[in-house]
Amino acid sequence: MKAAMWYGLHDVRVVDVAEPPVEAGMVKIKIEWCGICGSDLHEFTTGPITIPVNTPHPLTGQVAPVILGHEFSGTVVEIGDGVTNVQIGDRVTVEPILTCGECVQCKSGRYNLCSQRGFHGITGGGGGFSEYTTIQSDLVHKLPDNISFEEGAVVEPAAVAVHAVRLSSLNIGDSCAVFGAGPIGLLIIQVARAAGASKIVAVDVSEQRLSKALELGATHIVNPTRQITAEVIHDVTDGHGVDVGFEAAGAELSFRETLQSVKPNGEMLIVSLWEREVSFNPNWLVLDERKIVSSVAYCREYPEVISLIASGKINARGLITKKIQLDDIVEEGFKTLLTDKTHSKILVAPTLR
Amino acid sequence: MKAAMWYGLHDVRVVDVAEPPVEAGMVKIKIEWCGICGSDLHEFTTGPITIPVNTPHPLTGQVAPVILGHEFSGTVVEIGDGVTNVQIGDRVTVEPILTCGECVQCKSGRYNLCSQRGFHGITGGGGGFSEYTTIQSDLVHKLPDNISFEEGAVVEPAAVAVHAVRLSSLNIGDSCAVFGAGPIGLLIIQVARAAGASKIVAVDVSEQRLSKALELGATHIVNPTRQITAEVIHDVTDGHGVDVGFEAAGAELSFRETLQSVKPNGEMLIVSLWEREVSFNPNWLVLDERKIVSSVAYCREYPEVISLIASGKINARGLITKKIQLDDIVEEGFKTLLTDKTHSKILVAPTLR
Repeated sequence: MKAAMWYGLHDVRVVDVAEPPVEAGMVKIKIEWCGICGSDLHEFTTGPITIPVNTPHPLTGQVAPVILGHEFSGTVVEIGDGVTNVQIGDRVTVEPILTCGECVQCKSGRYNLCSQRGFHGITGGGGGFSEYTTIQSDLVHKLPDNISFEEGAVVEPAAVAVHAVRLSSLNIGDSCAVFGAGPIGLLIIQVARAAGASKIVAVDVSEQRLSKALELGATHIVNPTRQITAEVIHDVTDGHGVDVGFEAAGAELSFRETLQSVKPNGEMLIVSLWEREVSFNPNWLVLDERKIVSSVAYCREYPEVISLIASGKINARGLITKKIQLDDIVEEGFKTLLTDKTHSKILVAPTLR
Repeated sequence: MKAAMWYGLHDVRVVDVAEPPVEAGMVKIKIEWCGICGSDLHEFTTGPITIPVNTPHPLTGQVAPVILGHEFSGTVVEIGDGVTNVQIGDRVTVEPILTCGECVQCKSGRYNLCSQRGFHGITGGGGGFSEYTTIQSDLVHKLPDNISFEEGAVVEPAAVAVHAVRLSSLNIGDSCAVFGAGPIGLLIIQVARAAGASKIVAVDVSEQRLSKALELGATHIVNPTRQITAEVIHDVTDGHGVDVGFEAAGAELSFRETLQSVKPNGEMLIVSLWEREVSFNPNWLVLDERKIVSSVAYCREYPEVISLIASGKINARGLITKKIQLDDIVEEGFKTLLTDKTHSKILVAPTLR
């Protein structure tokens, strides 16, 4: 079968690999659509970050080259012995997080913080940018009939956004600001709206992303290249600052502006990943008892996220800006996302359509 | 009367000033002892930080020169009309925080975050490094008979420590690390012990401060100039990290080490003030959902703090390393604290003893 594999920095190739075997407890899925994630781009432009290269990943036993793709939907085509939660023919999506089940974090129920945490589609074990993949059955979730395969491929990033908002202190009626209107930022905007936020300020340097943000639920937009973010936040919140500032851009300026947008006793939540250090004065926290919390992945939230998409509270389709074939993943996928900020989520079809 | 006033950077003078008048609702106190605080040192070495110099402070109407000293005890010598909570002759300490009572923070009960917040002894309105001071009666708290005037002068920094631990997530049985074993760090160690912490790791570069930390309740000590902090924390916590890391040093290395000492899903609490920016990688937070919270001053906690000292749960006397006369405040006080890290709390007597 064909699969897109990460070989090294700026080196992702579509190659022929053997179809994965189905072992006991495993499910084989024919991939329908798989989204390109910011993490994939990070690995392409500055990796390896999470991809194992010298030491095999403790849970998958693999090193690069590895198959990429962890935001996918598909159809169950085979099940291993003992699998009871899905059947052949089921339309499904996958929670791609791999955990040891043994560490103190796993045993405390916070498996997203597993000390050996891996991701199917990043740390080996197969991935969604391939015609087929196999994964343990308890990570496979059925899609209801009213969720398309395209929307099913957006469940994973939507789960990141839902987890982030659930970890934040955002309460119904609160104001918030979302820095970075990429896919995660746009999903956080929708989740915050669904959670009853009164004011949702989207901040991004791209006008196209900002108009998408307005379309998906932002009540105000700020372009820091043309406006002073602090002044807009000041006006929108009657001088108080927002209750929660979501940092979904992963850049130093955004870090600083998010913190400065937050009211005294308010909270900044970081959901982005970082390629370098940031500099800031901790007095910004201390003098007004502000807080910084953080969020990674998701933990027991897939059924709720699928339900939020099924009910229309999250418009997954609204994020998708392009659909491409697997052979075009580097040129039409990665490179397009890196250069053209009008794009949000690009979906890849491993099987020719 | 004599008073120590801040005139500018490295310029604190003991001068003669008029005794303050007692207006309605005010209490006049003859100061017995007043401690030198880290904030006083910051103003001396890198000020003005909080001291108003060009624009009068909104609550006191004053600019420098201002009388310093906000950690003090004394005897009530006169009361203004309408004062009922204290009488002439009462032994008292003072909560030196000045607030507007009108802003959203004050009205929300978080007066320590008042948008116009000032401090008696920093932002004008009198201070403890003088023979007498006057202050509004609701900020005056009586000392029980079994608390000495010396201990009464330590109530203010003890309140900073109690507020910090109360704001933290520290729970009975938890482990913690305290970075910086100056007065606030040593008080946090005691408060954490009183709150039931199982392990309390004190981190400081001074051996004398570390042995004081052990004496006051630390279960382990680390000197980063001779040990690798992360290794000690790793050993002490079976590889997990501490539940809460208290940053009470205000230095970049300490910021980084505090965050690195905290377990996944754990918390760093910053109680120190900062003279410059720090650099760090937010992935330290995000990849394991760590948090940074912060704490400033105190809020409705003085009676509890006085009770903790009276019951012996906080050993206020253990912090005092030197007692001096007002005339010696610069040479024997500020300069000694800046150069000799064997000292913890130095108390100043405004009236010759």
